[in-house]
This record gives sequence, C-alpha cells and structure tokens, in this order.
Amino acid sequence: MKGKLILVGAGPGDPDLITLKAIKAIKKGDVILYDALVNPELLDYAKNGSEKVFVGKRAGKHSLIQDQINQLIVDYALEGKDVVRLKGGDPLIFARGKEEIDFVSQFDIKYEVVVGISAVNLPGYYGIPLTTRGVNESFWVVTATTKTGDLSNDIHLVAQSNATAVVYMGLKKLAKIVDVYTDHGKSDLPIAIISNGSKPHGKIVSGRISDIVNRYKDHPIPAPALLVIGEVVESYEHFQENFVYSEGYQQTLR
Amino acid sequence: MKGKLILVGAGPGDPDLITLKAIKAIKKGDVILYDALVNPELLDYAKNGSEKVFVGKRAGKHSLIQDQINQLIVDYALEGKDVVRLKGGDPLIFARGKEEIDFVSQFDIKYEVVVGISAVNLPGYYGIPLTTRGVNESFWVVTATTKTGDLSNDIHLVAQSNATAVVYMGLKKLAKIVDVYTDHGKSDLPIAIISNGSKPHGKIVSGRISDIVNRYKDHPIPAPALLVIGEVVESYEHFQENFVYSEGYQQTLR
Repeated sequence: MKGKLILVGAGPGDPDLITLKAIKAIKKGDVILYDALVNPELLDYAKNGSEKVFVGKRAGKHSLIQDQINQLIVDYALEGKDVVRLKGGDPLIFARGKEEIDFVSQFDIKYEVVVGISAVNLPGYYGIPLTTRGVNESFWVVTATTKTGDLSNDIHLVAQSNATAVVYMGLKKLAKIVDVYTDHGKSDLPIAIISNGSKPHGKIVSGRISDIVNRYKDHPIPAPALLVIGEVVESYEHFQENFVYSEGYQQTLR
Repeated sequence: MKGKLILVGAGPGDPDLITLKAIKAIKKGDVILYDALVNPELLDYAKNGSEKVFVGKRAGKHSLIQDQINQLIVDYALEGKDVVRLKGGDPLIFARGKEEIDFVSQFDIKYEVVVGISAVNLPGYYGIPLTTRGVNESFWVVTATTKTGDLSNDIHLVAQSNATAVVYMGLKKLAKIVDVYTDHGKSDLPIAIISNGSKPHGKIVSGRISDIVNRYKDHPIPAPALLVIGEVVESYEHFQENFVYSEGYQQTLR
C-alpha cells in the first residue's frame, strides 16, 4: 500500500497565518519534508513518531536539490508513508509544487493540495491593498528571477498596465525594474519593498520609482523581499497613522 | 474609548481555509459584520454575547450598500465596540476593504488587517498551479466587472504575455475575453471555469479558448465563477488522475 503526497502551504512566516486545513494535514503526515521558509513552530502540530526532514536551502548548510526532494517523496511513499510536503506560502504559487506532482505521478502516487497564504497576501499584512475600487482593477504577480536568470519580459507589459505589480525576488533586479517603469513614463509611481515578509524583523521601505533606489541605499533591508508597485501603495504612509499590528507575532514588526 | 475595526479574511468558503489569526480576531469582536460569501459556520467562533449582523447581498433579500456599511462600522466603534468586518477571501484583494479603512480613518478609528485565503488560491484547491517553472513566470488577477462595467483594458496586455490570467466575475464577459485571446492568436490556450469556489457543489469546466464557449453552453455552471487561462491549465485533465480531495469539506466537490 503506497503512501500519498500532501502538498501543504505553511503561509508566509507568521505561525498564525496557517489554516486549519493545513494543521489537520500536518497531523496526518508520517514524514514532514519542510523548507527553510517554513516557520519551525508549525512542526509542533505533527503527530508523535513522525519524521521531520529539513530539505531547504539555508546559508552555509547543505541543501537538497529539487531532484533529490522528488526522489525522497517517492521513496517514503513507496514505503507506505504519507508524506507532508510543507512549503512556505502556497504550494502551487511559485513553489515548484507542480514539479513534485509530476514526478510522483509517474509512480501512481496519489496527492492532495492544501492551499496557503502566500507572499501575494503580504502587502495586506502591512495594510497595503492590492486593489482599490476606482484606482485599479487588477494586480500582476511575477518572479523577477526566471529559470534563465533574466528579468521576465512580462514586466514590460505590466509597466504599461494599471495593474499593481507584486514582484518576487526582485531586490537584485530593482534598478532594472525601475528602468522599465521609467521608460514607460512612470517615474512618479509609488513602490514599496517588503523585506522578510511576516517573519520577525520584517521591514518596509517605500518611495517612488524615481527615488526608490536611493531610499533603498539609505535603508538597506535584506532579502527575501517583495516589491509592490502601483497607485495603491500611494496611501501607505498616511493611512498607516491608524493601522495597528495584531496581537502576537505581527507585533514583532513594529 | 473608541472601538477598533478588524478587517478579517474569511477565506473562499471551505471553513477549514480560515487561519488561526482570523479565528483569534473573530473571538475579539463585540460585533461581527459579515458578507454573503462568508461561511456562516465561522460565526461559531464569536464570543458569547457578540452581535452578528449580516450586511451582504443575497438574492431576494435587502442588502446594505457600502456607505451604510461604512457608517455602521463607525457607529459601533464610537460606542466603544470592536468591530470585526468578516469578508469572503482576503479583505484587501477585491473586497473593498480600503474603502472601509478610508472612511473610519476620518473618525480616527484604529484598524487591523487579517489577510485571508482568496479566490487567487482557488485554482490550487482544484490542483491547478498558477505558475510552473519553465512554463510561465507570472500570473495576473483581474476583475472583469470594473466600476464602469467595461472589460479592463489590461486584458489586451495579458493576452500578449505568458501570464496565467485569473479573472473574477468573468462569466458574463466570457465571449469578449475569448475574442481578445483569439485576436492575439491564442485560440489553443487552455482555460478553466471554476464555479462556486470551495463551496459545496463547486464545479469546474475546462477546455480551450476555441471551444470553451460551447463547452460552457453544454455544461452551464452558476456564478460566482473564476476563469483561469494559461498553459498551466493544460495539465488539468490528465494530472487529475492521481489528485485526491482532502477529507472534510473539500470532498463535497467530488
């Protein structure tokens, strides 16, 4: 009897941003394979006797490559173990979940998906809306670092639209992204950099396309970081006046 | 002493897709103002003696307009009550949360935001990834029904890109959206219609830009519906073979 794969979204860092569905899934796992972006407190939900295996990248530590993770899932499942694959954010949004599904499917291993709060929700965590009626009717989420290492071509289309842009892993490409928006006459557009998401010591730096490179130099904040670009960021500074961080983990951001 | 506004994302229907943070917030509310898209089971988390007020639109029932909701929040907060504003999905993604923030801010009322699983995550609930490495590096989320009732111009930019498109409230605009993609030479592109999200009797119809209008006629499924357009939908039919709906609410979809 084969085990199954349960892809579970662990959320963006704050352990209270886990769903009930994810907690129930973690409890079912005989093995939990977890990434560096997963808050380790979440492992406390695992049942007694379950095996927890760290498979993420972390500075100075050896990490498994995707092929090894895929194989590990299959090995455990063929032993009859249910494998919880715990990933930061949502497993099917920039998280390579589909690669794991495709691999295990070759072995006729069943899989479930538990969606999660992703970095897409992070602007809201800081009080920045992705959409505001009358201001914009869409948002566009893009990873700056593509498979080939180039800046996504889509950014040229985004810069022509009214969409709020949410850019994953954009810190190293900040100057290039600023150039694209400037070329499209958008040097006044508001932009925010959110560093470390909903983890302790999360930070935010905001400005305009025209000055964000200098502001970032003055206030260097570390990766991983998310860029949010659009008129919806406009209000960030003044509407923060009445914004209150929730009790618990979120208050570490103050 | 004024109360505060706590904007809380209730998720897309499945009551297990609520976060721990949202549950803790609901427990704090003296008043819960909730929408039609909110699963009423979630009201069971409210503390004893809290007041629950339905403010959503529902066929045949009177609903409050946004101005009335804004005023209601302020009235309760000025009475010293903490108001939980429970919204389907995420309060700052197509949910008019910003309008409520702007209104209460005029009265110096503090507010918190608890982000939530939104319709953006729904393709994943059915096993459809929004991104797959090597296939696409972005997704774009748009509401088809803008303030003016027109189709967003941004759709023409998206149809030129590799982005997965996620379209809210797109059912009535399906034929127009199909025309835009066809004009850009994308008649072979896969598309799925997800009806009723993660609520009981959720349904999905998939096809290609070229045949989706006819497929929808053959399998009419009700609003609210989400369109997902892109190569990532390609795999929907064949990779469903090993896909298993999770225990609980999700199994009602089978």
